[in-house]
Amino acid sequence: MNAFHEIVVPPDNFPAVILIHSPENTTICEMHWHECMELVASLDSRLYVTCGQNEVTLMENDVTIVNSSMIHRVTPVKGHAIVSLSLRLDPGLFKNYSKENHNWFDLSRNEEARRDIASCCRNLYELYAAKEENPGLLLEANALVFHIVYLMITYCCVSRMGSPQAHSEKYYGRYRELMSYMEEHYSQPLTLDEIADLLHLSKEHISREFRSYVGEGFREHLTKIRLINAQKDLLGSDLPLIDIAIKNGFPNLRAYNHSFQKYYDIPPAQYRRNYKRRNDKVEYADVLLVRQSEKKNPIGV
Amino acid sequence: MNAFHEIVVPPDNFPAVILIHSPENTTICEMHWHECMELVASLDSRLYVTCGQNEVTLMENDVTIVNSSMIHRVTPVKGHAIVSLSLRLDPGLFKNYSKENHNWFDLSRNEEARRDIASCCRNLYELYAAKEENPGLLLEANALVFHIVYLMITYCCVSRMGSPQAHSEKYYGRYRELMSYMEEHYSQPLTLDEIADLLHLSKEHISREFRSYVGEGFREHLTKIRLINAQKDLLGSDLPLIDIAIKNGFPNLRAYNHSFQKYYDIPPAQYRRNYKRRNDKVEYADVLLVRQSEKKNPIGV
Repeated sequence: MNAFHEIVVPPDNFPAVILIHSPENTTICEMHWHECMELVASLDSRLYVTCGQNEVTLMENDVTIVNSSMIHRVTPVKGHAIVSLSLRLDPGLFKNYSKENHNWFDLSRNEEARRDIASCCRNLYELYAAKEENPGLLLEANALVFHIVYLMITYCCVSRMGSPQAHSEKYYGRYRELMSYMEEHYSQPLTLDEIADLLHLSKEHISREFRSYVGEGFREHLTKIRLINAQKDLLGSDLPLIDIAIKNGFPNLRAYNHSFQKYYDIPPAQYRRNYKRRNDKVEYADVLLVRQSEKKNPIGV
Repeated sequence: MNAFHEIVVPPDNFPAVILIHSPENTTICEMHWHECMELVASLDSRLYVTCGQNEVTLMENDVTIVNSSMIHRVTPVKGHAIVSLSLRLDPGLFKNYSKENHNWFDLSRNEEARRDIASCCRNLYELYAAKEENPGLLLEANALVFHIVYLMITYCCVSRMGSPQAHSEKYYGRYRELMSYMEEHYSQPLTLDEIADLLHLSKEHISREFRSYVGEGFREHLTKIRLINAQKDLLGSDLPLIDIAIKNGFPNLRAYNHSFQKYYDIPPAQYRRNYKRRNDKVEYADVLLVRQSEKKNPIGV
């Protein structure tokens, strides 16, 4: 099983990460997984959503859910331009509602709720796709996300154990835990030895296995987690670069500069300046959208 | 000018404080003021809303706004049972949209937005008035509040200076600042000397004036600010009482116990136990509603 683990870090003022796929923004979507739940809305296109062992064909203006840690991929139906919205929901939204085995969702349980969620996704898309400036954008986006999660919790909860999808999930259990651990402790100097101890496995075993579950080596993945978390400080604060580096687990400024340059092809100071110039007026919208064109690698910010 | 200053502290998971007035919950509403903006929705009743020099009569299912720091009062029209909702909005909701002199709202600027806001207020009321348990209540309440603020920002902003209400506001400027200062520094050992220095006035002058602007003495008001902020820790955490006391500016546990008993007529430990027992199932809803019956004094929690 080869899939990569995607790091999803919502900004502080919005409990989700929005990705818009459009013909101008075609990214190859490999098999991947992440802890957060994801809604995939087809808008005006038709999509195949492969999730675990299932493949769903989404017709125009429909929506489906990818439950937590399911390996999945979204591809366009041949002849259809892809215009879709994916909404990755902050796990924090669900944490007060999680009864054991109940944080699993199936939108086909309630037709009306599903239509309502699809229409909220379209509203979100239109909000972000609008050409004119909208100072209240983030407020309305928050309203839509909270309403979507309300509908999910109220009408679409199913028992995790009853779900046919749950079967494939158990193989990922160990790596799911490991990813949570890395995302919690990235600011400390993590080593492969420590991880091996944690999983009661040899360093060599993990080193071999890691790549097939996460899609890249341990060091590389840890660096990406650090870079993505550092982005919040880089774009959302005036902290000096050295403080950002240390706060996010880089041993020094040089290491931060070096990794940043490698992944973003630009030094962090320059990236910050460009961003500030662009965002003098639009304060937040840009942080929420992953601008694929800016990235060399599939790092979600 | 005699009015009391009301302390409004929204909980961590909801950016507003909701008050429902019903025939079973009749409180005498004196002239009062607070920094946060308030929406007053009449639902099925008719109300007089006195705000600064103006009096508005709200017909059934209408809504009006009380801008920041305006002295106001809500009273029922004779012969009408009062069923109304007041929504005090966390100033944090507006802080990213405040252009100078623009954080002032007038709902009559846009009829459609006003009707939409009134209908959101009704939905909020129905959410809280519903008899059956609703696990997603807080999510939907968040969605409604964000949508309301979106409509306000987008359609109802006016220049503060152009508003006829602004005139009466300037007299309160000094006390507005003072209230903000106290609400920021309540966890430190504040004294009247410090406040006098801050306002460049004599201690005696302030001592005299404070009561007519705030409705009670300096010490008493400071204690209320501390008690209300401590409520969040008392009900939302498992911190020991002594830590709650110190964190919120009480010199020791004895002082906290004493003040708590005075205002709530029950020791804090007992209050916490009662709350936890009641809230085993409903996790948050209760924190949002001010239960007038539990209070001897008009402290909003």
